Amino acid sequence: MEADARYVAFTSLDEAQFEGERVSYESSIALEKALSPDVLLAYEMNDEPLAPEHGFPLRVIVPGYIGARSVKWLREIMLQEHPSTNPYQARDYKLFPPEITAKTVDWSRGKTIEDLTLNAAITTPQEGETVAAGPTRIQGYAITGEGAPVERVELSVDGAKTWTTATIVERADPHAWCFWEVTVALSPGDCQMIVRAWDASRQTQPEDMRPLWNFKGYMNNAWHRVKIHVS
Amino acid sequence: MEADARYVAFTSLDEAQFEGERVSYESSIALEKALSPDVLLAYEMNDEPLAPEHGFPLRVIVPGYIGARSVKWLREIMLQEHPSTNPYQARDYKLFPPEITAKTVDWSRGKTIEDLTLNAAITTPQEGETVAAGPTRIQGYAITGEGAPVERVELSVDGAKTWTTATIVERADPHAWCFWEVTVALSPGDCQMIVRAWDASRQTQPEDMRPLWNFKGYMNNAWHRVKIHVS
Repeated sequence: MEADARYVAFTSLDEAQFEGERVSYESSIALEKALSPDVLLAYEMNDEPLAPEHGFPLRVIVPGYIGARSVKWLREIMLQEHPSTNPYQARDYKLFPPEITAKTVDWSRGKTIEDLTLNAAITTPQEGETVAAGPTRIQGYAITGEGAPVERVELSVDGAKTWTTATIVERADPHAWCFWEVTVALSPGDCQMIVRAWDASRQTQPEDMRPLWNFKGYMNNAWHRVKIHVS
Repeated sequence: MEADARYVAFTSLDEAQFEGERVSYESSIALEKALSPDVLLAYEMNDEPLAPEHGFPLRVIVPGYIGARSVKWLREIMLQEHPSTNPYQARDYKLFPPEITAKTVDWSRGKTIEDLTLNAAITTPQEGETVAAGPTRIQGYAITGEGAPVERVELSVDGAKTWTTATIVERADPHAWCFWEVTVALSPGDCQMIVRAWDASRQTQPEDMRPLWNFKGYMNNAWHRVKIHVS
């Protein structure tokens, strides 16, 4: 531990290829975030020992942040003055403005992606599914990062001309997935369902993914669209 | 002052018409917000007594919140258990989902608008102006509410196909207007400039105002577009 620790680095037992080199997976977060009461070291999930695919025996959980910070198969924790120099922290998961390309990139100038942006997805029915006409229950989840919690989820089945407010049926805490459902009347034919969320600051999601372009392809939180067939 | 005070109401010397009735303007904010160090009672601006149009002799300043909460010509401050029942608090400045209309509205179910959404505007050049072709300096401001501060401002002069990151030249504090400028090469002809901001949580603004529709017309933070002529 360094005397002026400002970051906490988590090293995994997992080894991965990064541009041809074999490295341990490692990621760091600010000490202040690590000390917040919602950051956990998990060894159980739903009263069962953590499954291997969830990071057995010990996994970091950093609610509100992208999954890359919730290091699985935890081997070591280091307090240090600087962010981790591991390529998954120093190079990967960085956001660049749209005028930067793979050819012009200066990795040190990218913004480290930490908290999630507001997003929502439709989980039922699924893409390509056929459902019967009439009142149909549509379900999904919404999530956001460190900002204001999800306040409202809306569904459109007429190409964003009108929206119906869904019911938020379950949310364990402000950083958790927020489950929603809504019953809408569907007429026979092809149908595109669109979902978007609003947060308590009255921010919402962008309509289209194109303006969100960045050469690493991160943080696309445009409206989720699912096409189904109504018989 | 009520024993279990949770809200602070500010009453103005100003009287206004609300649906035909003459009422004093009044607004309230949560006590917790009122006690935060950035909420002020202002009697001076730039070392001069407050001008009448800015609320002389005393004005509330609630950074991060919509202007309606920064009550001018302050007459009275009340601590109370409930939000102000003044129509400007109880009825006005409430946000409704898109399926609610003036005919179906239940005012008590609207969400009180407090913090600003992320927004940006172009101030120079102005709509309809003619500028000479070549490198041109474009200027404006960006602002946000209680969430993550403005991190990046981008300008497009080719219909959102490409964006150039502007320089943030001045920002007094995270809630203050953030001034930006950028020099872009303009070719002769009609030109639409588009600006949008991103905050430090990597949220950005919606492309179009239509999906933001609500029957009161509030909180439109779609990209700002200004048409100019390049000679």
